[in-house]
Amino acid sequence: LKIALLGIGLIGGSIGLAARERTGAQVCGYDGDPTVRAHARALGAIDAEATDVAAAVSDADIVFAATPLAALPAVVQAVLAAAPPSCVVSDVGSTKLALAPLAHDQRFIGGHPLAGAETAGVAHARADLFDGATWYLTPTPTTSGVLYERLHRFLVSLGAQPLAIDAPLHDRLMACFSHLPHVLANLLVGQGRALADALGADQQLPAAGPSFRDATRVAGANTAIWRDIYLSNRLPLIEELDTAITRLGEFRALLAAADAAVTDDIDPRVGVDTAVTANAAAAAIAAWNDRARADRQTLLGAGLAGAGGEPVHELRASVPNRPGVIADIALALGHAGVNIVDLALAPSPDNSAGQIALWVRGAGPAARARELIAGLGFPVVTP
Amino acid sequence: LKIALLGIGLIGGSIGLAARERTGAQVCGYDGDPTVRAHARALGAIDAEATDVAAAVSDADIVFAATPLAALPAVVQAVLAAAPPSCVVSDVGSTKLALAPLAHDQRFIGGHPLAGAETAGVAHARADLFDGATWYLTPTPTTSGVLYERLHRFLVSLGAQPLAIDAPLHDRLMACFSHLPHVLANLLVGQGRALADALGADQQLPAAGPSFRDATRVAGANTAIWRDIYLSNRLPLIEELDTAITRLGEFRALLAAADAAVTDDIDPRVGVDTAVTANAAAAAIAAWNDRARADRQTLLGAGLAGAGGEPVHELRASVPNRPGVIADIALALGHAGVNIVDLALAPSPDNSAGQIALWVRGAGPAARARELIAGLGFPVVTP
Repeated sequence: LKIALLGIGLIGGSIGLAARERTGAQVCGYDGDPTVRAHARALGAIDAEATDVAAAVSDADIVFAATPLAALPAVVQAVLAAAPPSCVVSDVGSTKLALAPLAHDQRFIGGHPLAGAETAGVAHARADLFDGATWYLTPTPTTSGVLYERLHRFLVSLGAQPLAIDAPLHDRLMACFSHLPHVLANLLVGQGRALADALGADQQLPAAGPSFRDATRVAGANTAIWRDIYLSNRLPLIEELDTAITRLGEFRALLAAADAAVTDDIDPRVGVDTAVTANAAAAAIAAWNDRARADRQTLLGAGLAGAGGEPVHELRASVPNRPGVIADIALALGHAGVNIVDLALAPSPDNSAGQIALWVRGAGPAARARELIAGLGFPVVTP
Repeated sequence: LKIALLGIGLIGGSIGLAARERTGAQVCGYDGDPTVRAHARALGAIDAEATDVAAAVSDADIVFAATPLAALPAVVQAVLAAAPPSCVVSDVGSTKLALAPLAHDQRFIGGHPLAGAETAGVAHARADLFDGATWYLTPTPTTSGVLYERLHRFLVSLGAQPLAIDAPLHDRLMACFSHLPHVLANLLVGQGRALADALGADQQLPAAGPSFRDATRVAGANTAIWRDIYLSNRLPLIEELDTAITRLGEFRALLAAADAAVTDDIDPRVGVDTAVTANAAAAAIAAWNDRARADRQTLLGAGLAGAGGEPVHELRASVPNRPGVIADIALALGHAGVNIVDLALAPSPDNSAGQIALWVRGAGPAARARELIAGLGFPVVTP
């Protein structure tokens, strides 16, 4: 297997190390900075250096574009112009919609490994960076099944867990579950610093329990990476910000209603708190907090399901040999939260149809996968 | 030393355990629920049960009101009506301004230990709950110096680090550094759940890196406690929410400006991202993120200063024997971030003046303390 890497930073370098150590693949790397190429070679992340994109990909089986996010569209276009017809081309960018137009080429499948966003540079690359990490893939109706299979299996051999998802859904989920928390962390440190300044207090973090530290751990993350993420995902993020602003305003209104109730019904001594807790706004605040606990339990509780060491089940489905079939199956399972541990394609002798074998962990997820694939119109058997 | 506890939950019970194990004090406890009193006695958190507030405090040296926040004003009033003239009365509520009117009585000093907010009940009480914990105290110009000294030294003997602060400043800092992070955690889980629902996705938390988990660890914290905190601190919290809404709107405007720039200057192929990163909005987003990193470093870096094992320095100041002097000194040092490891008062023979001895860790903080106390007009010597 021949792998080409374009851009050899933390992610590209870690792909190279894992590929060479775990799969025996040959890795050819290109980076705009020749000292990075030399460093990558010295570290064992690549076997060979290429001096331009075309040379790097000319005989590759799998190409990863691993440059900064802003450069990816141009780089992937250049790769598709130079790569062989049977090569699968992917990227590692944190947002996926900007590259979606390139998926008109059946060789391109967008990707996003959830690993290593905070440090940068090939010097930090590690062969085990992707162990157990979710690696999103964004196949489309034009995606070649053979190429999807090759990419999926290679990522599994790196230690990752590929998960198919629509590009727009990916970007909306990231806006809410990753980018918004980063924005709020930045907000909190800025607001805390401004308050400390305004009060003329020492600028140290006042003792206040662990919530502020927990909530601001990612504040001011690598600007070169995060500027591009915010910009690239600006539309979904604007939607999430609008929702956040609305919801904060709603909670503010509950507090203001509680305050108004006190002013109407103030205890002339001191006990205003007792008056407040008795009113409707107080009940609404309690309900709001209870809902948050339930939401958290739903999100986290469900996320833990099926994570254990249950046995892997094999499913086989007969599928027509046309583009998009594997993407349909992978997306249906991905959206239902069913991980495909591994998959393999076997074409029929005349190449008109084929069989896909899927391995899924856990009896429940396997049953769900069977149901979903049958729902797509493909007969499933359990061997 | 005789201690009275009113309300024997996690905090009250832990005060009792620590007092009995570490100081040899006698602890008398009252709780509205007789089974709680019996449980506290069985656990060794109290020596004796009282059957009402007056009986509990009648011969106490130090009283802690440790009921839920909403009940504190009435309980502290009842305590002050029944407690001896030489008794110091404190509380453990998470906000301090609601009780500030009670400080017209020189025996009352508001308190707030930063410990154990998430679990409740005497069954979880521990003698080591306050080890190393900041314990805010809110002395005022009417505070008795002798009673402040007694309370401070007792809290040190429990393992805590008392820190003097103005009640309004305490509540504003908590609004920003504790209550707002809790509101944002609740916001995030609600928004995440709503998005998952809207997309018809599985309700599990999508794989998205650690930022969401970190930011939502405190979501839906104990409603009985947090409803009262939000209500009690509603005005400072409304201010913080207004600031947060404004700042989120400002960041949204940066993203919208970036988007408008792309629409004006779109790359007809795919490379919109390159166009975006070149414009002024992109530079503003980068600067915004850089500022967050600097703010975080300032807040955390300063917070770590002086935490090490530097030697403790003793300072002695001659002070007039009038109320408020100790409060002035404690507040001046507290606002400058100088911890008073311990303090002791020695009255002059005719009781008209006295000497206060202070122990401060680290040469820098000790020098600062000396300067601050001298600035208040009290001569300081280093013995």
